[in-house]
Amino acid sequence: MISAHAAGEAPVFYLDDLHVGQRFTSSSYTLDEAQIKRFAAEFDPQPFHLDDRAAKGTLFGGLAASGWHTAALTMRLLVQGGLPIAGGIIGLGGELSWLKPTRPGDTLDVVSEIVEITPSRSQPNRGTVRVRSETRNQYGEIVQRFTARLLVPRRTGSGSSSSTDARPAQSAE
Amino acid sequence: MISAHAAGEAPVFYLDDLHVGQRFTSSSYTLDEAQIKRFAAEFDPQPFHLDDRAAKGTLFGGLAASGWHTAALTMRLLVQGGLPIAGGIIGLGGELSWLKPTRPGDTLDVVSEIVEITPSRSQPNRGTVRVRSETRNQYGEIVQRFTARLLVPRRTGSGSSSSTDARPAQSAE
Repeated sequence: MISAHAAGEAPVFYLDDLHVGQRFTSSSYTLDEAQIKRFAAEFDPQPFHLDDRAAKGTLFGGLAASGWHTAALTMRLLVQGGLPIAGGIIGLGGELSWLKPTRPGDTLDVVSEIVEITPSRSQPNRGTVRVRSETRNQYGEIVQRFTARLLVPRRTGSGSSSSTDARPAQSAE
Repeated sequence: MISAHAAGEAPVFYLDDLHVGQRFTSSSYTLDEAQIKRFAAEFDPQPFHLDDRAAKGTLFGGLAASGWHTAALTMRLLVQGGLPIAGGIIGLGGELSWLKPTRPGDTLDVVSEIVEITPSRSQPNRGTVRVRSETRNQYGEIVQRFTARLLVPRRTGSGSSSSTDARPAQSAE
């Protein structure tokens, strides 16, 4: 029951295609020291995200990426095929935990698991899905956990011409 | 009981200086369409964050910033004086809600309120503080709410020489 928006594209999942316990794994991404410092300079200019020597004397014990950088890279991995929801990934919010610092040279990937599926009572064409996304480093350690509440479209009509709708296709890049 | 790390700097708050209900207001920041698209291209490449025309046909009804962009700008405002915690803003996680889209030209500020203060039982030099930070646009609408759990240092010793410690000073810029 999974449909692709065009020939050759990866399949995308509507609410009706998902089940609790279903898992998705993203591709991986390696970040370097320059990226960590650039993100921090723009969004989180604190010594432990900007300067390795200054970071040594802090709780982090060395340069660490901003938690918001880890979160943004997690989103990138989800959008680029890690969580192929029809219409794209539209988050309402969620619970976020940073469990370990992300360091220069770390390679991240994201494993997502469907936790809860709730069709909307008032809107027959959509519902909400809770997804727990764990971002891991190259040692298999979980650096971030984000349990998101996503808005997910349902297949419209009774099935036949259901694979096209007004929503944008998931950007697979 | 508020101390500044050096003459002329803004005061910073230790755990012992905070009380439930205490509020802080950040400066403000205006973001433009180019910034929205640049952030999205790097971290959240979906049509409704990249292209105004494509966004028109979606739930957003027009170009909207990635929620992670709103979150990152909120952090910027907190670090740049919006939440002057001694040692900087070190978050363990929290509950995040995106209530309204952030649009090109929006001017954001952040009002933070101390919700809960918990001295550590095992670590006498620190504790955790829950802070609810509401990010508002120029119409006073709340676009994001983040209730964070922060690690906050205590004043060490019995008070007299307590205003210097090994942690980095809050970066006030």
